[in-house]
Amino acid sequence: MSIPATVVTPPLADQLDIVIPTIRNLDFLEQWRPFFQPYHLIIVQDGDPSRTVRVPEGFDYELYNRNDINRILGPKSSCISFKDSACRCFGFLVSKKKYIFTIDDDCFVAKDPSGQEINALAQHIHNLLTPATPFFFNTLYDPYREGADFVRGYPFSLREGVTTAISHGLWLNIPDYDAPTQLVKPRERNTRYVDLVMTIPKQTLFPMCGMNLGFHRELIGPAMYFGLMGDGQPIGRYDDMWAGWCAKVICDHLSLGVKTGLPYIWHSKASNPFVNLKKEYKGIYWQEDIIPFFQNVTLPKECTTPQKCYIELSKLVKEKLGPIDPYFEKLSDAMVTWIDAWDELNPSTDSAAAATVKVEPSKPK
Amino acid sequence: MSIPATVVTPPLADQLDIVIPTIRNLDFLEQWRPFFQPYHLIIVQDGDPSRTVRVPEGFDYELYNRNDINRILGPKSSCISFKDSACRCFGFLVSKKKYIFTIDDDCFVAKDPSGQEINALAQHIHNLLTPATPFFFNTLYDPYREGADFVRGYPFSLREGVTTAISHGLWLNIPDYDAPTQLVKPRERNTRYVDLVMTIPKQTLFPMCGMNLGFHRELIGPAMYFGLMGDGQPIGRYDDMWAGWCAKVICDHLSLGVKTGLPYIWHSKASNPFVNLKKEYKGIYWQEDIIPFFQNVTLPKECTTPQKCYIELSKLVKEKLGPIDPYFEKLSDAMVTWIDAWDELNPSTDSAAAATVKVEPSKPK
Repeated sequence: MSIPATVVTPPLADQLDIVIPTIRNLDFLEQWRPFFQPYHLIIVQDGDPSRTVRVPEGFDYELYNRNDINRILGPKSSCISFKDSACRCFGFLVSKKKYIFTIDDDCFVAKDPSGQEINALAQHIHNLLTPATPFFFNTLYDPYREGADFVRGYPFSLREGVTTAISHGLWLNIPDYDAPTQLVKPRERNTRYVDLVMTIPKQTLFPMCGMNLGFHRELIGPAMYFGLMGDGQPIGRYDDMWAGWCAKVICDHLSLGVKTGLPYIWHSKASNPFVNLKKEYKGIYWQEDIIPFFQNVTLPKECTTPQKCYIELSKLVKEKLGPIDPYFEKLSDAMVTWIDAWDELNPSTDSAAAATVKVEPSKPK
Repeated sequence: MSIPATVVTPPLADQLDIVIPTIRNLDFLEQWRPFFQPYHLIIVQDGDPSRTVRVPEGFDYELYNRNDINRILGPKSSCISFKDSACRCFGFLVSKKKYIFTIDDDCFVAKDPSGQEINALAQHIHNLLTPATPFFFNTLYDPYREGADFVRGYPFSLREGVTTAISHGLWLNIPDYDAPTQLVKPRERNTRYVDLVMTIPKQTLFPMCGMNLGFHRELIGPAMYFGLMGDGQPIGRYDDMWAGWCAKVICDHLSLGVKTGLPYIWHSKASNPFVNLKKEYKGIYWQEDIIPFFQNVTLPKECTTPQKCYIELSKLVKEKLGPIDPYFEKLSDAMVTWIDAWDELNPSTDSAAAATVKVEPSKPK
């Protein structure tokens, strides 16, 4: 009377792509093999396109280098950063899936306090498939979690929640600090495992880190543009921040949820703080104007899609941030180019007339 | 060569009162003795004033029953609820200290995951004495905590933080659920210890529970009015919620911080859900209008003190919530009476002409 073993299908295996920007061999995938192998990978190779990036055996992937980006996007490739992990957003553009998980290649599997290895991807998927609660704070945090609920005084009309568009995961070991903090606290390590997922409330901005991030590509993908960073640009290390600020105000406008907290990954090594300072220093003072700008952005009611929101935002960037530095005018133009590229590669039903571009990676699976 | 033992002075022992509303003997204090004994207690006896409330030996306390409240406040005593723990705010009124910690008499000492007893009061004091960060979300939570800091992308101009006015603590074992949730989930217990203190962002409301609560009396005390509940009123169990909504919008207006999370207390027993449903049911639907009201409240710039803010809020309550039910007109009047009572018992330097009232408890220490 043998009972057949239950076949557990990995969640969303056919609806999610894992996007990895890299300049090196992807040996880090060995540790992730039990969790990532059922999923398709999109690898965006940064830097010298003639270099070969080695991917461990058995992974299903497509890989794009700079030559591919230039070939696929043509003149629009100017919106994709070079020599900066901001190039990862090209992977968001060429994906055809509903969800994206993106991770850096210096991020490894972390353990929870019981010593269990954390399946970061499974937690992101859980976060994305359960509602978010941006309109009122629940003091026991995620009300949809086993053993928790909405507390007394939480309005009943808000308990259905909204669709979650972004799941922002955290990092044990090396915290995601800016250059000044790295310089001041060279030995600080994050050892605190906070057992928590929460919704970031509406009208609250946060620093979104691209190291360990999941999102609903169909709902918020067009806002996940990582800006102009790296080679030939006056700024670096603000790529994910820019995407986070834009995406958060658009999520607020479209009543979509943003969660942060679990899952943790193990961030293995700190980047060079002196190099980082050089990349960051303009951002450090520009940011003092950028944050009030985003805090005060209001999008018109007519903006009912992420694309429309993003185009509107690009205009406001030019108008309000342009006076700070010509960089923001260039960035505003790049935001428009990004949406053009998005619409070209992702023709929606109501823009069926749009030209379709043949997307072909360097190494088809 | 003996070294004298270090005498550790309990923090703020001469600047903080512990306020406890009760109808029974305070045997629960035995468990809290190591933590509370250095502090002064203000006990507000609810219900039958002829009943004797027994306080364990060795505590420094003053006790007020209904006769005392009537004697001290005269006609203004109408603003203090009867047969409801909302009467606790009388203790806030008669305190002369800078800080308040208030706790329910069914709350015991909880243990952290390592089995260590949690000194809830010490954690509240720590929360109140360190800044809060309401203007931007820090993904590693409390940036002032040992081993944490502000993450990359957090604006440097906001890293000084603001003064913390409220520290809202949580509960292990019996969660603070409303009657419908109690009825639906009779066996649910909160067993998750989330190792976290965080600032509730500006413009975000939260359900403030009065069970385990610390606050800066000088900065926000006048907004900590627990409303008209219990005997003769159409509603109960919204006392702390009301105080929380009023206090949060006033903290936002005055740029003060509100924290939630640690410390946990052990909440020993659930109240009767059928009784609770009777008390709550009007609140459950009124709340659907109250929350949008508070979400949209704007206080004028001239309101520079919690008193001025609270008087302004009372006018808005009458105007905007009065149409829902005559109860809100009565509540609005009681809010004004409360501020009159506050100013009478707490004459500030700029209102030195105000009459002073002799406050004398039933059982002086």
